[in-house]
Amino acid sequence: MAIPTQIKGFQFAGVYAGIKENPNKLDLAIIYSEVPCTIAAAFTSNRLKAAPVLLGLKQIKSGKAQAIIINSGNANVATGKAGMKAAEEMVKITATALNLSPSLVYVSSTGKIGVPFPIHKISPGVQKAVATLSSDNLPQAAEAIITTDQFVKIDGLKDRVKGAEYTLVGFAKGAGMIEPAMKGPSTKHATMLGYFMTDLAIEAKTLQSLFNRVVESTFNRISVDGDMSTNDTAMILANGLAGNPPKKLSKKDLESFEKNLTKLAKSLALKIVEDGEGATKVVEILIKNAKNSQEAKTIAYRVARSQLVKTSFFGEDPNWGRLIAAVGYSDATFDPSRVDIYYDKVRVAAAGISTGAETERQAHEVMKNRAFKVTIDLKQGKGEFGVWVSDLTTEYVKLNAEYRT
Amino acid sequence: MAIPTQIKGFQFAGVYAGIKENPNKLDLAIIYSEVPCTIAAAFTSNRLKAAPVLLGLKQIKSGKAQAIIINSGNANVATGKAGMKAAEEMVKITATALNLSPSLVYVSSTGKIGVPFPIHKISPGVQKAVATLSSDNLPQAAEAIITTDQFVKIDGLKDRVKGAEYTLVGFAKGAGMIEPAMKGPSTKHATMLGYFMTDLAIEAKTLQSLFNRVVESTFNRISVDGDMSTNDTAMILANGLAGNPPKKLSKKDLESFEKNLTKLAKSLALKIVEDGEGATKVVEILIKNAKNSQEAKTIAYRVARSQLVKTSFFGEDPNWGRLIAAVGYSDATFDPSRVDIYYDKVRVAAAGISTGAETERQAHEVMKNRAFKVTIDLKQGKGEFGVWVSDLTTEYVKLNAEYRT
Repeated sequence: MAIPTQIKGFQFAGVYAGIKENPNKLDLAIIYSEVPCTIAAAFTSNRLKAAPVLLGLKQIKSGKAQAIIINSGNANVATGKAGMKAAEEMVKITATALNLSPSLVYVSSTGKIGVPFPIHKISPGVQKAVATLSSDNLPQAAEAIITTDQFVKIDGLKDRVKGAEYTLVGFAKGAGMIEPAMKGPSTKHATMLGYFMTDLAIEAKTLQSLFNRVVESTFNRISVDGDMSTNDTAMILANGLAGNPPKKLSKKDLESFEKNLTKLAKSLALKIVEDGEGATKVVEILIKNAKNSQEAKTIAYRVARSQLVKTSFFGEDPNWGRLIAAVGYSDATFDPSRVDIYYDKVRVAAAGISTGAETERQAHEVMKNRAFKVTIDLKQGKGEFGVWVSDLTTEYVKLNAEYRT
Repeated sequence: MAIPTQIKGFQFAGVYAGIKENPNKLDLAIIYSEVPCTIAAAFTSNRLKAAPVLLGLKQIKSGKAQAIIINSGNANVATGKAGMKAAEEMVKITATALNLSPSLVYVSSTGKIGVPFPIHKISPGVQKAVATLSSDNLPQAAEAIITTDQFVKIDGLKDRVKGAEYTLVGFAKGAGMIEPAMKGPSTKHATMLGYFMTDLAIEAKTLQSLFNRVVESTFNRISVDGDMSTNDTAMILANGLAGNPPKKLSKKDLESFEKNLTKLAKSLALKIVEDGEGATKVVEILIKNAKNSQEAKTIAYRVARSQLVKTSFFGEDPNWGRLIAAVGYSDATFDPSRVDIYYDKVRVAAAGISTGAETERQAHEVMKNRAFKVTIDLKQGKGEFGVWVSDLTTEYVKLNAEYRT
């Protein structure tokens, strides 16, 4: 089934505004709804936040929006007061061009850090984008937000709530500086950007609390390089044109919508890991039966960030010693003589020691797949946490040693 | 001046015992003193500890030693009860061959994790080693403890305390799984191994408290890959043959000795970073004026472990945006608009923003050196902490994706 990319009342544009050096790329996107929307969002928890993130954190309190402008090529971070002024200017230019109140226009940026923002390119860029706004142009918008990505990331679905059919579509970018830990405005790493649009009618508060849970279980569970960005942003716009009465959404309807949104967000999150800079593998690291879920999370991230673990994935080498050593330095409660370790269903270590050469050979076969799961069962309690991580490859190093220079 | 490698009363051996696959390598070392020594030690704080480490933690309480046996090729960790039995057996075999009490014999291992320990190779190996013990063989012992190292690491000096001349010599190994955080027996990571021998007479308690400080300011300040080993061990043996009365060591004498030991330990620690797997750079990351020294340490390690930072060193790219982003996600107290960033003396960012293209070009020149210093001045307080780190290279990935398979 084809992915739906049209949503009632939404228009999109993706153009080249001259922010990126290469004129064959797109670098400016607009998401526009013909009617006002409710909005929910989550932003990076990095203490260094890009100007657009600082601005968004203020705006989001209203729960209202009608447009988002997004540029790639410059992250507008570590740009001082001029950077903040540029973000505000970007909102104003877009609001004027769309005849909207600036309070309804959000901005996101991704790209280089610490480079003065080329605000003079925004006004002509926005004119160009507004002139091409169309319900057909979501793919162009999705393309305009990418940086080091190898492919565009879009997913969508149609479903029903009581009394109405609705569409839900999302697009995202991200390949490096990926370990999101985004928080909602009242709550808690990559530049990853992710935008969802739906015509379902849903109240802003309900949307935000639901979106917090979705982000926590999807985007906040991926790690490419362990570096949390200053710009991570995820947003959802709901314009209500599906026609359902928002106050009459049943618990079952909301659960169904949350499930659908989680499915799309997970799909986009996994595409980011798959497209991780230089990545050849998508590995789920699942910590089971830790003392509690917080310890499971701590262990999962220490394992997920270990250079030795990540190179062993690239080498398809079931070197479980590196896994258990990383568990050991996570400082979590841990009895090495109880630990079982699996690659998919192949148990390479039982009660902390090797199960032999044959299982190791089988695990090596498992690791030849593009995606597999590593399970570390600590037999310590009931805590569980899983993260998705890419491998560390020679290509990753080449890409990141060459970027910018 | 040639490095002294002979110390009064100490004998050394380095032989091939068949633990490594390649018979042209050495894999078994003995350090032997003709008379009993005082000993101080520091071991890994990884919760998964190799069998020899667990044994050493028990033995060290006595403060006495006369020999150390060290093998490379197998780390004797995640080897269960059989591994612990093997470590004990190794001590017994060596004690018998040297006609010593087992309580005076220590064991260290480094190499593969989770592989059954080939204890049957130890007895013939020890016979061979004991037969070649000589005051001339420190270089062979130093060679026998290396694994993925590209070169042998030895340093030494001669100095005087009141009434006696003494010699102090150290050797070490380590290239990967390097981020030591070793603790003394009553206190708190690579496999790095480091051994110091001196003929100075010094009481065990004094030696241990002095050694804790030395380890903390040298070996515990390096990071190659951010992975803490299960086997890290540093030891110092003092056999007293220099003839000084130990109780009469003045405060000044002890300070002088500590300074000398720090100098050697730092020299060996930096050799480990220089020999870091695939490394082309040795970079000091200095965090200045953090809120306090604990926060400075937290920030230093987040920056030191960042894949994006480490690849920028390899690429000689003064991408300070990656530095400041890593400071941001360290969760330390931090005002981006106050931060200055330097590559050696070149200030690339002032008050959180770029100082322009010319300083960036100068910083790029600095980064062409094999060793340089990155200073991040937070202007937040008086906390300071420095770590030495290698770069992340394509060669690192190749080495660690291929190891074992």
